[in-house]
Amino acid sequence: MSLIKPILLAGVSLALLAAPAIAQDPEAIRTAEALRERALQGSGAYEIVEDLTTRFGARPAGTESERAAARWGAEQFRAWGFSNVAVESFPLSAWRRGEERVEVLSPAPQRLVVTALGGSIATPEGGVEGEAAIFRTYQELLDAPVGALRGKIAVVLQDTPRAQDGAGYGSTSPIRFQGPTEAARRGAVGFLLRSLGTHDHRFAHTGATRVGEGTIPAFALSPPDADQLLRLRDAGLGPVRLRLFADVGFLEASTSQNVIGEVIGDERPDEVIVIGGHLDSWDLGTGAIDDGAGVAITAAALRLIAELPERPARTIRVVWWGAEEVSQPPPAPGLAGARHYAETRRDQAANHVAVSESDFGAGPIYALALPANADPEFRQAAMRVLTPLGIYFDGTPARGGGPDTGPLVALGVPAFRLAQDGTDYFDTHHTADDVIDRIEPENLDQNVAAWAAFLWLLAESDVSFRPPAQE
Amino acid sequence: MSLIKPILLAGVSLALLAAPAIAQDPEAIRTAEALRERALQGSGAYEIVEDLTTRFGARPAGTESERAAARWGAEQFRAWGFSNVAVESFPLSAWRRGEERVEVLSPAPQRLVVTALGGSIATPEGGVEGEAAIFRTYQELLDAPVGALRGKIAVVLQDTPRAQDGAGYGSTSPIRFQGPTEAARRGAVGFLLRSLGTHDHRFAHTGATRVGEGTIPAFALSPPDADQLLRLRDAGLGPVRLRLFADVGFLEASTSQNVIGEVIGDERPDEVIVIGGHLDSWDLGTGAIDDGAGVAITAAALRLIAELPERPARTIRVVWWGAEEVSQPPPAPGLAGARHYAETRRDQAANHVAVSESDFGAGPIYALALPANADPEFRQAAMRVLTPLGIYFDGTPARGGGPDTGPLVALGVPAFRLAQDGTDYFDTHHTADDVIDRIEPENLDQNVAAWAAFLWLLAESDVSFRPPAQE
Repeated sequence: MSLIKPILLAGVSLALLAAPAIAQDPEAIRTAEALRERALQGSGAYEIVEDLTTRFGARPAGTESERAAARWGAEQFRAWGFSNVAVESFPLSAWRRGEERVEVLSPAPQRLVVTALGGSIATPEGGVEGEAAIFRTYQELLDAPVGALRGKIAVVLQDTPRAQDGAGYGSTSPIRFQGPTEAARRGAVGFLLRSLGTHDHRFAHTGATRVGEGTIPAFALSPPDADQLLRLRDAGLGPVRLRLFADVGFLEASTSQNVIGEVIGDERPDEVIVIGGHLDSWDLGTGAIDDGAGVAITAAALRLIAELPERPARTIRVVWWGAEEVSQPPPAPGLAGARHYAETRRDQAANHVAVSESDFGAGPIYALALPANADPEFRQAAMRVLTPLGIYFDGTPARGGGPDTGPLVALGVPAFRLAQDGTDYFDTHHTADDVIDRIEPENLDQNVAAWAAFLWLLAESDVSFRPPAQE
Repeated sequence: MSLIKPILLAGVSLALLAAPAIAQDPEAIRTAEALRERALQGSGAYEIVEDLTTRFGARPAGTESERAAARWGAEQFRAWGFSNVAVESFPLSAWRRGEERVEVLSPAPQRLVVTALGGSIATPEGGVEGEAAIFRTYQELLDAPVGALRGKIAVVLQDTPRAQDGAGYGSTSPIRFQGPTEAARRGAVGFLLRSLGTHDHRFAHTGATRVGEGTIPAFALSPPDADQLLRLRDAGLGPVRLRLFADVGFLEASTSQNVIGEVIGDERPDEVIVIGGHLDSWDLGTGAIDDGAGVAITAAALRLIAELPERPARTIRVVWWGAEEVSQPPPAPGLAGARHYAETRRDQAANHVAVSESDFGAGPIYALALPANADPEFRQAAMRVLTPLGIYFDGTPARGGGPDTGPLVALGVPAFRLAQDGTDYFDTHHTADDVIDRIEPENLDQNVAAWAAFLWLLAESDVSFRPPAQE
């Protein structure tokens, strides 16, 4: 439960080497600080995102683009000196977007900027027409009785609040996940929501929706188009009639894959810390902030560690998960790679010391959150190293370490979180505007600095985040 | 050449009424100031743009949407008390955008965000394929000898500089107008340019290109996609091959129209000041800043004047020109409504005192430019009224009063310009993001204040901007 392993570095005194287990190993801290400073001088993470997004563009789950990116990733891992590099494939049904179109038929004919939600079913060839039933909030839709929307197109215009930690998005995500199902239950033949974004530009924001028996075609409106529908409803020109068309669906039996590499611990190699991001992206942008940034940050952090003359005590493994965004259920769309990773390692879950993911864009890290029973002395060591990066300790225990950590967390693996500032994340996330131009290289360097330093401390320690009962 | 007409207002002294012609008629200035202040309290211009863009969405030249907007406009003009309201139709070939698609075939297959240039010809059904010949600047393309681009797709990545007065756009517009022709002359089978925009978002910027015998399909890349092609060229992965597809063209014999209304002068009704904007828009956005703002600003200014208890000495006419953006040549794409207006009034050109247009977005006015031989005392009166709005006098004589004034200026009609701050104009202009959300109502009020005040001074005066030889 403390930092006990003194490490061998030039200039370490014999006195230190002979010291008993101590709460904050000065050498581990020194190395962590050196990793931090090295990253701040240029971590190379930006170049990884640039390479990835230039060479492969969008990388939707189950596409050749995702597969090619995975092959390239494995090559990079080897070139960076990672061990046990592997590409682990798994089958899935890939969701595909063809043509999509939503238009106002009356009272003011015009085409709207929309995008089908990931997982949506297709419309019939001639589209779906109906009168719009426009709701300002999701609750208004939920208040409508079963049957009330028969033959109509449900439109939910609730806005997503801006929040540093993404809580605003959390508050409106149920509209996207469940909204089409709830609208269908009430008789609706189509569903539109205001994009779950915090911007007011003409980008529509896709994202996964839950599909199942009886669900209906579902789309996101760009924020200006959502406002346009509201103005049209209130213009007193008569009912708003819409036509929806989408040639989309789970059309293709395919494969996705996780890309794995590690720096093997030299003392307790079976104790594994898992980090990573997801390699797949939505099809609209090139997945620079979601999640090119995350795969680059975590890999660049591990690369810095791999470049050290010494090895950490524990193994650090980076996983570039596949098919995070959307894939055929059950049980829910997405997270296919993370589920595959966890399912194939059920018997190794106990060896997983901790898991975390970088999947919240390219903003700077502002807080560290640890599991509830993290050792206070370890926390102190971590904050000694992270505070100069503008990071504070978030006393609320980490409930998870990112979407792809969920399946491991469900197996009892503790999660930590290096929380990124997501104030602007939903200005771009899941839109065509998610491209490399949205990234400030210095922010990625700060992320890598935090990850590399924190990972070194954790990998050099024997700290356990598990509840005492599990020990 | 001076402000000579004292006007009748309650409280005007007999002494004033009896005064001889004076340089700066205090009553005219007082009324102009009252118009200015009235506009600043809420000119209603924003509501006009809101109505227009909500009811009609995009209004491409020659479409039913443009026609419906014109009918609505005429109704508004009548409701606002304008006289001689008319919709003047003229024939044109309308350009239509169907599906369009550009993709990188190798070395890194991916779809790019593009839009066909207005006036572009269609590709064959299977598209056009070729190796990209990528030029950083237009000059590089012009330097290539005839034949050098045989079978290739010419790509010009020159960036548009940001400039308050639009000069940056002026510097790159020839790439769009002439680039396809110049590329075709050198053997190219397709043409792409970096969008003539100042933003770095994933919007492609359309606009008219010159077409003629031998021209080739032409597209604009979104700025991030332009950068992407440059990175791909420089990645050392081999030649960049592209496929272009566009189902576009001058497909349809149609009509467009000018909407005209006026406040008739009570002393010299035949002396006409013409102002306005263009009612058509590109198809991608809803034409809020281009040029919903301009039609609203000029009409709201005239409406304020129509609401006065008195009439100006001269007639002020507002024209909402049709088909400014694109229509079948000859001689050049666009300006069809302005040409129609001028051609049908050749014999009345001498009665046109001055012309100006509001067609530079929704930013505040920062400068007044007058013809070279504007009377200094009139200028002084105008600046007395405009200076409190943050407007200075631009000593460079106005060369024109906006695109639609061109045909009248060619007939010798003097132009003035109330120059709007266009620093951000090309962040949005000609993209899908040209929607009402981009407009600050206060800026429109400031515009209306300047237009109404200036128009009153000009319409109350007998100032002539024509060179003495023409008098």
